[in-house]
Amino acid sequence: MGSLECDCKQLLKNVVGDEIAMNPLDLGEFRRQEQMVVEFLVNYYKNVEKYPALSQVEPGYLSKCLPSSAPQDAEALESILEDVQQYIVPGLTHWQSPTFFAYFQANTSTAAILGEMLCTGFNVAGFNWVSSPAATELESLVMDWLGKMLDLPRPFLFSGNGGGVIEGNTTEAMICTLIAAREMVLRRLGHNSITKLVVYGSDQTHCSFQKAARVVGIDPQNIRALKTMQSTLFGLSPDLLRNAIRSDINVGLIPLYLCATVGTTSVTAVDPLEPLCKVASEFGMWVHVDAAYAGSSCICPEYRKFLNGVEFADSFSFNAHKWLLTSLDCCCLWVKDPNALVKSLSTDPEYLKNEATESKQVVDYKDWQLSLSRRFRALKLWFVLRMYGVDNLRSHIRNDCRLAQLFEELVAKDDRFEVFFPRNFALVCFRILPSAVASMASGHAVENEHGEAWELNDVNKLNAQLLHAINASGRVFMTHTVVGGVYVLRFAVGAILVRERHVIMAWKLVQERANSLLNMSGSNTPHA
Amino acid sequence: MGSLECDCKQLLKNVVGDEIAMNPLDLGEFRRQEQMVVEFLVNYYKNVEKYPALSQVEPGYLSKCLPSSAPQDAEALESILEDVQQYIVPGLTHWQSPTFFAYFQANTSTAAILGEMLCTGFNVAGFNWVSSPAATELESLVMDWLGKMLDLPRPFLFSGNGGGVIEGNTTEAMICTLIAAREMVLRRLGHNSITKLVVYGSDQTHCSFQKAARVVGIDPQNIRALKTMQSTLFGLSPDLLRNAIRSDINVGLIPLYLCATVGTTSVTAVDPLEPLCKVASEFGMWVHVDAAYAGSSCICPEYRKFLNGVEFADSFSFNAHKWLLTSLDCCCLWVKDPNALVKSLSTDPEYLKNEATESKQVVDYKDWQLSLSRRFRALKLWFVLRMYGVDNLRSHIRNDCRLAQLFEELVAKDDRFEVFFPRNFALVCFRILPSAVASMASGHAVENEHGEAWELNDVNKLNAQLLHAINASGRVFMTHTVVGGVYVLRFAVGAILVRERHVIMAWKLVQERANSLLNMSGSNTPHA
Repeated sequence: MGSLECDCKQLLKNVVGDEIAMNPLDLGEFRRQEQMVVEFLVNYYKNVEKYPALSQVEPGYLSKCLPSSAPQDAEALESILEDVQQYIVPGLTHWQSPTFFAYFQANTSTAAILGEMLCTGFNVAGFNWVSSPAATELESLVMDWLGKMLDLPRPFLFSGNGGGVIEGNTTEAMICTLIAAREMVLRRLGHNSITKLVVYGSDQTHCSFQKAARVVGIDPQNIRALKTMQSTLFGLSPDLLRNAIRSDINVGLIPLYLCATVGTTSVTAVDPLEPLCKVASEFGMWVHVDAAYAGSSCICPEYRKFLNGVEFADSFSFNAHKWLLTSLDCCCLWVKDPNALVKSLSTDPEYLKNEATESKQVVDYKDWQLSLSRRFRALKLWFVLRMYGVDNLRSHIRNDCRLAQLFEELVAKDDRFEVFFPRNFALVCFRILPSAVASMASGHAVENEHGEAWELNDVNKLNAQLLHAINASGRVFMTHTVVGGVYVLRFAVGAILVRERHVIMAWKLVQERANSLLNMSGSNTPHA
Repeated sequence: MGSLECDCKQLLKNVVGDEIAMNPLDLGEFRRQEQMVVEFLVNYYKNVEKYPALSQVEPGYLSKCLPSSAPQDAEALESILEDVQQYIVPGLTHWQSPTFFAYFQANTSTAAILGEMLCTGFNVAGFNWVSSPAATELESLVMDWLGKMLDLPRPFLFSGNGGGVIEGNTTEAMICTLIAAREMVLRRLGHNSITKLVVYGSDQTHCSFQKAARVVGIDPQNIRALKTMQSTLFGLSPDLLRNAIRSDINVGLIPLYLCATVGTTSVTAVDPLEPLCKVASEFGMWVHVDAAYAGSSCICPEYRKFLNGVEFADSFSFNAHKWLLTSLDCCCLWVKDPNALVKSLSTDPEYLKNEATESKQVVDYKDWQLSLSRRFRALKLWFVLRMYGVDNLRSHIRNDCRLAQLFEELVAKDDRFEVFFPRNFALVCFRILPSAVASMASGHAVENEHGEAWELNDVNKLNAQLLHAINASGRVFMTHTVVGGVYVLRFAVGAILVRERHVIMAWKLVQERANSLLNMSGSNTPHA
């Protein structure tokens, strides 16, 4: 092959020209620069408590600080990190701050950061088995691990002929299962029946469900958000569901899919899974159980009861990236019938054909999700489960719940306030009571600014003012919801760095701001 | 508030119990363990060339190596990393190996790893502006930077009233724009018209398009994959498109959406954007331009011509995670009319209401994508653009193209082979020619194993055998496609560590394996 050598030399001269001008993976630089970012993060965590948890910047602030075009030449990491500190950090709402009590938490952890780093380092696009067998097989394995930790019924596990997959988020989990259900029906009735399909949730179901249903082509008029009531703790009523389904069938519609929730976003309400599943099964519907937030808690035996009835559902998902230390994104979805997903989501272009797929001995996760490419997210989940172990993960959950219980009891001891919804997990919903408003000193506030008697609307406004005052302090970040027409503040415990003192500080702040609002100046309140 | 202090102490005693049992963000451990993973990755990159680029494990290998349940107790990182080395690395198909020439590359880089690490460290769920203003504003800014680097027409940039967003992947970009287009039509005609909507691509359009169209409820019978031909370089014919649209309209269907491609997956064919857009505009259709792979190259002025005509499209996307050093996942999507996305994808639940959103002064990216939560992916893109700069990124692209040109010329000099498709970017499609098969020594191979004259099918088989032999060597990984009935091997240059010697080694391997297949034993070939 001597002549080949000559050819190559000649061609190299003609073609390749200069040596590569840059090295995007210089190992010496990689080491040095990683070190810098590690120190940056260590410093960030040391100081994060001092920053306002809710960013205080104004819309449009960043474009005033940074150039409007990319640099022509390389810049030093030093100056980039300076810009991160100076311009990015003030614009962050600090989800890892111990004073972040908003929404639901999004936990990161050392294990997740390490796992994510290996994931980015390997950067395999594990769309099918052959494109990185370990990415697929570790995901299957670790989803069985996690399924066992949750005591999921065997039919959801690979070892029971079901299976789990890591999706990016709950919307994707819902879209994929909606499509699986939709295609089962449309294969039978023809595609034109898509306009008759109806999906069911409650008025407490996460907004992702409405969105997912719209995405897959359900007529917006056929998306039911059944009314819940405080008297039944905002759970979806099986009778109401049955009646709604019957009404729909009577007008020629086709019931398709029920989304039941364990731990709603507003108040962590829990739908009664078993009776709901029984209703759905009367009509041959797919049932998905969304436990996005609360699912993590069910690794503790004492919280597992909230999943009772999941054995009658078709699919179940929760976000390990919320409460299970796994960092975004990691939505864990299990299905009893993986074939239902694969039949509806598979693609088989020539350029991806391979022997492993044809052998039908392997899982090709591209057929369990929307996208083709997928990151090796199982690594970080595996790291979290191993570096902490089941016992520590349970402690982590219990610790947050205990801190929430502390806050709940503090609220309960102040008779101007009420805990609006019995705490199930680590979220406390509370508000200033109408009675506190009515009893405000000297009668000047028994009427509102329009001289009318105080009504629910006014109480809601006062609670909204309270939240605004709390967040404007920059000392904590909480959010709110409205359920059954009642405005309540949400205190979600779960930032990884949170300790008792942060919870107590937050409660004192609530009281201080309430004192001001209720026009009770001075340092003592008659209620404390 | 003295009584509060007492309350807290008492409650703490009752409620909180033991101090937290674990610390998932111990900063000392974080430093030490990060260091270990950095060293692991350095070692990985040093050795990656020695591993078979295509994993050689058997289906089911991993479950034989690892326990079937999560550990009860914490495990040391040392032993986890040992398992990564022993069990995960052999199961990886090494996308970062310089001997990986399969699919299209998925580049990582130091900058991407650093940016991703900060992203995981901050772990903000930037679904709307207020949930981390910097995440939203940096994304908008950096998408304008990148749009300018690509010389995208101003109407795609925020500075021109359009805008860009980072989606997870091309399927998501397609789904979101399909829904925007779908809802524009259905708002006018009513939801029942969903069954009449038709979408158009070519038989070379990526499989994600078929999937995206199915996801959003397009009748599978209304998804057109118009035939392309070798004589027109597998580009979609505008005349064929017009005829197809007219036929569809004639039977009462409604043309909705055209997906045009710059750089198809099989052979990097380029659809003629301008004439296609003109046809589509005659019928009021949405045009999306998918340049998933080739888009990165258009930061070089000499490749920008392939985007000519994009000014007439409605949306454009490419994957920075393929060729632009940005690691998975980073699909960059620009639209001229962000409102079309927002109107179709927005959600507005009470628990997310906030003043910034109500002011309409901010972007809430949750309304530009499928999911609610989103990672701060703009950080890594910003790191890549700044740490390398435009000039170096262009060198990176050009270097890969030059190496592909080298391979192309090597193929061209061996008259047993043909370069099947004129190289546009850094992919070379090639095969053993039918003539080489026919001229195989002594006539024993002018007939196939069934004693029939060699036909296209047999030539295809031989090329498939060649690919199999190449990949079975473990020394490189290439993939294949079939276009116009012809089986060709795909040699995609672009792994970050690839140098001339790897390209030359790969070509020698191709020749060696071809020699064996063509029954020409001995070290010299008559053709070299």
